[in-house]
Amino acid sequence: MNFCSNCGSNTIGLIVPQGDNRERYVCGNCGIIHYQNPNIVAGCLPVWEDKVLLCRRAIEPRLGFWNVPSGYLENGESVEDGAKREVWEEAAAKVELDYLITLYNLPKINQIYLQFVGELVGGAFGVGEESSECALFTEKAIPWEEMAFTSSTFTLRRYFENRRLGKKILHRGAYPDL
Amino acid sequence: MNFCSNCGSNTIGLIVPQGDNRERYVCGNCGIIHYQNPNIVAGCLPVWEDKVLLCRRAIEPRLGFWNVPSGYLENGESVEDGAKREVWEEAAAKVELDYLITLYNLPKINQIYLQFVGELVGGAFGVGEESSECALFTEKAIPWEEMAFTSSTFTLRRYFENRRLGKKILHRGAYPDL
Ligand SMILES: [Zn+2]
Ligand SMILES: [Zn+2]
Repeated sequence: MNFCSNCGSNTIGLIVPQGDNRERYVCGNCGIIHYQNPNIVAGCLPVWEDKVLLCRRAIEPRLGFWNVPSGYLENGESVEDGAKREVWEEAAAKVELDYLITLYNLPKINQIYLQFVGELVGGAFGVGEESSECALFTEKAIPWEEMAFTSSTFTLRRYFENRRLGKKILHRGAYPDL
Repeated sequence: MNFCSNCGSNTIGLIVPQGDNRERYVCGNCGIIHYQNPNIVAGCLPVWEDKVLLCRRAIEPRLGFWNVPSGYLENGESVEDGAKREVWEEAAAKVELDYLITLYNLPKINQIYLQFVGELVGGAFGVGEESSECALFTEKAIPWEEMAFTSSTFTLRRYFENRRLGKKILHRGAYPDL
């Protein structure tokens, strides 16, 4: 942050405001505090029969690696709507959300993943603009060594655990471990 | 947003960037896209014996109303750490987190609540700087008409339901309803 988005001044300092207990970007001219907060990454693992749908990333970071459809939650959206939108954008597919399976923290990069399990409506899907390929995988066929993010691996492993147990358990995790 | 935080230009426009599908604040000078995303409000309902701990707000908004200890998640924090920090800041109390009970969407104000149930360590608490009063309540004594936010009411009602059932179910909700 070089300039104040409120007044345009370049006198931004990193200081602890009065009544606060951590450093914030504060404008030396108009006094406004520029808070910065973590982002939610919303997603959904689409399930069809004994298979799950993954997308191969056509964009950086981790271009060419496989992922559970997920992306930044937008203003005005619920987490549920964001998860469904991401499945549509990445796999041209519709899902009926079943349950929230993952709360996964990435505090070093200020991301919080919230991922659902959902039913892939009609088993139908295509390839979204941010994907080079989308495909259904049985558990044995998952390309574990080619997953894009630890959050995807976490969600996939916990999903198959839940399925074996016949449960819909929410799992919490973090990278690095809390 | 009046000025670009990157270059200081006042030529900020609300346009749909190439490859995107929604309006963003884009700088007409340096071209940077200023994304805006929802914030997480992390919290925890502290439980001690048959009672829960609530805090009366000493700050706006909803000054004087009761709340489940909650506040904005900070950069570098996990949701779990944020929830514990808020209990400390609002009630000078420590909690051992038990389970995530609430995912509550407020899309109109771009807030996503994530609230836990936790054990109030030793039954001990004080009054944090943002509270005028903190107190333990049985279900019958909850000041339902004086709750600060619909998220607090939602979490409290679901907590007592869960307790009656002997379950630790995650509940999802929204205001207005999805
Ligand atoms: Zn300023
Ligand atoms: Zn600029």
